[in-house]
Order: sequence, then structure tokens, then C-alpha cells
Amino acid sequence: MTALYGRIALIGLGLIAGSMSLAIRRAGLAGEVVGYARSAETRQTAREIGLCDRIEDSALAAVRGADLVVLCVPVGAMGDVAAEIAPGLKPGATLSDVGSVKRAVIDAVAPHLPQGVHFVPAHPLAGTEHSGPRSGFAELFDNRWCLIVPQEGADRAAVDRLEALWKAIGALTDEMEADHHDLVLAVTSHAPHLIAYTMVGVADDLRRVTDSEVIKYSAAGFRDFTRIAASDPTMWRDVFLNNREATLEILGRFTEELFALQRAIRTGDGDHLHAYFTRTRAIRRGIIEAGQDTDAPDFGRARKG
Amino acid sequence: MTALYGRIALIGLGLIAGSMSLAIRRAGLAGEVVGYARSAETRQTAREIGLCDRIEDSALAAVRGADLVVLCVPVGAMGDVAAEIAPGLKPGATLSDVGSVKRAVIDAVAPHLPQGVHFVPAHPLAGTEHSGPRSGFAELFDNRWCLIVPQEGADRAAVDRLEALWKAIGALTDEMEADHHDLVLAVTSHAPHLIAYTMVGVADDLRRVTDSEVIKYSAAGFRDFTRIAASDPTMWRDVFLNNREATLEILGRFTEELFALQRAIRTGDGDHLHAYFTRTRAIRRGIIEAGQDTDAPDFGRARKG
Repeated sequence: MTALYGRIALIGLGLIAGSMSLAIRRAGLAGEVVGYARSAETRQTAREIGLCDRIEDSALAAVRGADLVVLCVPVGAMGDVAAEIAPGLKPGATLSDVGSVKRAVIDAVAPHLPQGVHFVPAHPLAGTEHSGPRSGFAELFDNRWCLIVPQEGADRAAVDRLEALWKAIGALTDEMEADHHDLVLAVTSHAPHLIAYTMVGVADDLRRVTDSEVIKYSAAGFRDFTRIAASDPTMWRDVFLNNREATLEILGRFTEELFALQRAIRTGDGDHLHAYFTRTRAIRRGIIEAGQDTDAPDFGRARKG
Repeated sequence: MTALYGRIALIGLGLIAGSMSLAIRRAGLAGEVVGYARSAETRQTAREIGLCDRIEDSALAAVRGADLVVLCVPVGAMGDVAAEIAPGLKPGATLSDVGSVKRAVIDAVAPHLPQGVHFVPAHPLAGTEHSGPRSGFAELFDNRWCLIVPQEGADRAAVDRLEALWKAIGALTDEMEADHHDLVLAVTSHAPHLIAYTMVGVADDLRRVTDSEVIKYSAAGFRDFTRIAASDPTMWRDVFLNNREATLEILGRFTEELFALQRAIRTGDGDHLHAYFTRTRAIRRGIIEAGQDTDAPDFGRARKG
């Protein structure tokens, strides 16, 4: 495939940047991929495993001459990093990010944007419960959605080129407005993560059931929550603090609905419960038909050979 | 392997009974496996696919002469089925069940127990989101726990033989007291299921985010909830109605904790969130070390080839 960008700089070298670098280099989509991470240990690991073509010791050095710069740091750090790299951005370059919240990132990054640099926020909906420079793999984005959030008056060619990059590394793309993105993600990601963290925290904290019992008997349902509750704590702290209103709105609706179901249990209203549980099955079927999960039994776990 | 029982009768032919039959017959653990289901359609399907050695058209006929009878019906139906089969139970036979709640099942079944029949309640912690006679597979119980809940004054030989059966079809076994079982399961299974059902119901019900958006972008976390929220509605209605107090107790603790995290989001208390999210990671590690899940990336989903 022809290179879409001469040089791509990735700032932050965790799961997403690592997977991007591997996928971009495998497909030959850039002349060179340069990386930077704040932690010296992460940079050292990235050099050892050859994660990028070149690792720089400062963000400013990493972005010099880059045609595309992608911020892959926690949402709460985006503004500071943008301020730091702004003087090094090449006129005509595109600046993007992979943050799970868009309105707060736009508000934090836009003020630092030099004239002539195109800002095209994006969010790949892909991840695992692992983090750090060793966690990436080139197939992470295969068949996953990447939402592109173009700003008013955005340069169409810059937006199209970034979309082409995401498609070329396996993703499906859609464009979405920033506030709607934040609401959709509050439903499909942020509220579910907080709920999973909460349930795991409660189980850990009960006096009358031991941790060892919770762990041994987790296959009965609890296990499905622990996976997403093992996600990176810094990333998720920043998501909740930066998508506060939408997350709290969804959690409010969730609590209301949970109380209604609790009341049905308390009063013995089996019909209400049965109707509710029947309705939720349909959503699952939709997800499988849309190719966003498999229908394999045993909750998608690999069977022991 | 030598047969552990001459004849085993399975009442109810869903995921659990079907998987038991396949596993028992594969390992030659019974002289004959007889099955019965209330629905004529289910019996017909079971005959077509050869799920058991023999399918009977009445529960009473199915249990006649059986050395082990296992009730594999929803928890709310156990008492009626026990009353129906009681006249046909062979003296010296063992009666067991696979219900997800133990105290209510014991209270419903025990009054119907004829003299000389050993009642040994059990609960295999295994399942998928699929149900019905075609959903079973012989490996379902491999490396999963089966909790045995012996009654006071139980015949030790009967208990040991049932445990040996579960081990022979791949399960690990533990003995537990009924009320403690119901509390442990409220934490590891019942509360997580209700929470997953609630979250999926909320997403389905929001006016400002479409179902198609929820489905397309589900890989960001929501997907993990939909799997357990696709479980059999009748089975789960009965679980909640029959483990009411323990489930409501855990949900009460959950709500308390969720409110504390919501307050931390509202007030911007990032340290509280970070500390909480760090603690929950440890539980996940424990589950992987205990062999109850794999550490494969992409949330355990099979990669597209």
C-alpha cells in the first residue's frame, strides 16, 4: 500500500499507540513512525521491542517534521501535551488524538493549535484490559469502529486522509459530533465501566464472603465484570472526570431502572422481571448480527483443549 | 470408566441437563440416561438429536427405576416437579438438582421426599447465554466448580457418589451450607446478572441514542454486559424471586458504593477513583491465576482470521 503520511508521530506509547504503530508499519502506511512516552522506562521498552522506527526523548523532538501527530495519552493530559508540542508542529500537519472523551479534549487542545495545523479528533473503540508498551498488537482495530469528530470548518482533505488511515489499519469509520459522541460513549462504555468497577469493588469488600470464594466461583457471571474492571486506572479516572455530565446522566437512569427491578423482586412481580429479561435478549442478537461479538458458547471463552 | 449409577434420570432438558447427558454418556458413567421435558417440542428435539438414551413422555415414567434423579428445571418449578415424581422414586435412590438457589429449593423439595430416598442438592457453576435442548455440550463443566449442599444427616455414600459423578464429568467440587451458598451466589452471579440486565435495558430505552448506535459501538464495554443479559428469562426470574433477600442485600451495598463513586465524579475526586480502580485490578489477576478465565487480549474474543 502507498504511504498515506510521510512521517507519523505517536505521543504516549500504551496499548493504542503501540497497536497503531504495529499496524501502520505492517501495512507501510507511513514513511516513518516516531514515538515518545513521558516515562523513560516506557521509552526503553519501546526501543527494546522495536515498537516504532524511532523513539525520541522529548515530545517536541518527536513531532518535528511529522505530517500526522496523534496524541495517545490519558484524556486529562491532552491539554498539557498539546501546549508542549505546539511550537514543533509543521504547517499543514494534522493533529489528532485517540481520547475516549471528545468535548473536553477539543476544549483542552484547540487553544494551543498553531495556524495552519489541522485538528481532527478521533476515537477508536477498541481496547483490552491490558496496558503499557508491550500490550499492543496489529489486529486490535480489525472490524472495530473509529469515530472521527471533525471540527467546524475542518479541512476536508485532512479529515479524509485520517479516515483512510484508520480504514487501512482495519477499522470501520463514522463521523460524529462531539457532544453526541460523549453521550453515546457514556452509554456504551463509560457507565458500563463504572458499574463493573463498582460491582468488583463490592465483592472485594464483603466481610461474609471471602475473596477466595469470589474468585473461585466467578464463572457464574461475576467474571464478565472483572475484565473491564481491570482496565487502566489513570485512563478511566480521566474519562469520568472529563465526561462527567453524560456519565452521571446515564448512571441516574441506571439507578432508577435498578430500583424498579429491585422493587419487582421485593414484591414478587415475576411478570415484570420476565418481560424485562426478554427484551434485553434482542439487543444481544443485534450485536452478534453486527459482527461486534461472536455467538460461541461458554461466554466466548476458549475451551480447554 | 465404571458406571457410577445404573440409571440416571434428568428432568428438564435445557443447557445443563443436555450437557450432563452428553458428558455422562461419553464417559460411560451410567448404564442408561433417561430424559424428560415438559414441552413436547423439546422432547421431540431431544429424540431427534439423540440427547439421552431414552426420552419418556412423563416425569413419573422417566424416574422409575432410576438410581439418580436430577431436577434440571427452573428453581420456581422444583417443588411441583418433586411432588409429581415422588411416587415413582426408587427406595435407596438419590434425588439431586442443579438449581442456582439452594435454600428455596430445599424448602420446596424436601417435604415431598419419600422415606429411603437421599436428597443431595447441588449447583454446577457453569452456563452460557444459550438455552434449550440443542445448547448442551459435553465440555461445559470442564474446570468449573460444582457446589454440593448436603443436608443434615445426609447419607455419606450418596453424597460421595454424586461428587464422584461431577468430578468424572470434568468439574471441581466443594461442599457448602445452603444459606452461605445463596449469599456467595448473590455476589458472584445473581447481582451481576441483574445489573447487566439493567444496563442493557437502560441502553435500549434511551431516546437520544439509537439502538443501532448502541449495537455498533458496543465493543467499548457494553458488549460484556449483553452476554449475561441474554440468559434465559424464566430461569433468572425464578432465581431472583427465590434468592430475594441475599440479592437485595448485595444490590443495596452496590448502590451505596455506586453513589460514593458518582459523588467522586461530581466533586472531581480523582484520587478516590484512581485508588478504587487500582484495587479492582487485583481481583482480576486472582481469577486468571485460579484458572477461571484466560488472560487473552481483546477481552477474550476470538480474533478474526
